[in-house]
Amino acid sequence: MTRIISVKPLTREAFAPFGDVVEAKDADSFPINNGTTERFHDLAKIDTSMEDGQTIVSIARSQPFSLPLPIKMMERHPLGSQIFMPMSGKPFLVIVAQANSDGLPGEPVGFLAGGQQGINYARNTWHHPMIALEAVSDFLVIDRGGEGNNLEEYFFEGKEYIVNDAA
Amino acid sequence: MTRIISVKPLTREAFAPFGDVVEAKDADSFPINNGTTERFHDLAKIDTSMEDGQTIVSIARSQPFSLPLPIKMMERHPLGSQIFMPMSGKPFLVIVAQANSDGLPGEPVGFLAGGQQGINYARNTWHHPMIALEAVSDFLVIDRGGEGNNLEEYFFEGKEYIVNDAA
Repeated sequence: MTRIISVKPLTREAFAPFGDVVEAKDADSFPINNGTTERFHDLAKIDTSMEDGQTIVSIARSQPFSLPLPIKMMERHPLGSQIFMPMSGKPFLVIVAQANSDGLPGEPVGFLAGGQQGINYARNTWHHPMIALEAVSDFLVIDRGGEGNNLEEYFFEGKEYIVNDAA
Repeated sequence: MTRIISVKPLTREAFAPFGDVVEAKDADSFPINNGTTERFHDLAKIDTSMEDGQTIVSIARSQPFSLPLPIKMMERHPLGSQIFMPMSGKPFLVIVAQANSDGLPGEPVGFLAGGQQGINYARNTWHHPMIALEAVSDFLVIDRGGEGNNLEEYFFEGKEYIVNDAA
């Protein structure tokens, strides 16, 4: 039986079990540069130092997917958090799951991120690889560099998940 | 006498004395996520750990300036590097200076950053506060959080600098 993954708008509150939403909206801020710039300060918990890890900055260029999209696997990073920030103002789809009692992904849930919203997957959060929607999309990535095995993958077997639409 | 600051296109080579250019163009990359995403890897030297500093992520929302613009001061951060990455694909103006033998800013130089280019000011690089050009512009900022005095400012006296145009 195929289960349909529900997709909600991305908000800090709804995403809190999975990490941070990186956006200016409703964030604390203060003026800098003689008032010509407003700084929305310290928006995510960067957690990259395990096993001598370092914080690194990269760009991910993602091909767009069309819906409906089957969700066949998820991944997580046991050694570090991971921020994806859209560089071109385009919305994208985020699929995450809380771990079940065996540490494997539970029921996946979906969030539609607006083009001015980034996400920070907390360390060890199960998530699907990037799902750009409209066009090839660049994201600034802030995650962990260093030695050690920082990738776990899980392929769903005996369960079929699908995202029908992003609304 | 007023001196006119020359503005060049932003390239890695020309900006190297001041820090990094964060862009996918001409960067090393490899495929991830089963080939659906290309990762341009480790594009900047994050240097935020002095005096127990941490790497933090913020958003800077900058009001646009119009040209010609007098450049009356510069600042630098003795404890940390600082990345600004445009979130809305708009160009911006970067004014930097190498330190002279007294540690004060030498002759300022200008770079026009394209909307897909970010910059990373190396620790202690003299620079002017953000200069957005076309409209109110959001930038993702990756810099240092923590105690300690991380700001030096220098106001030019007896010298007048101006940026006439960004071309």
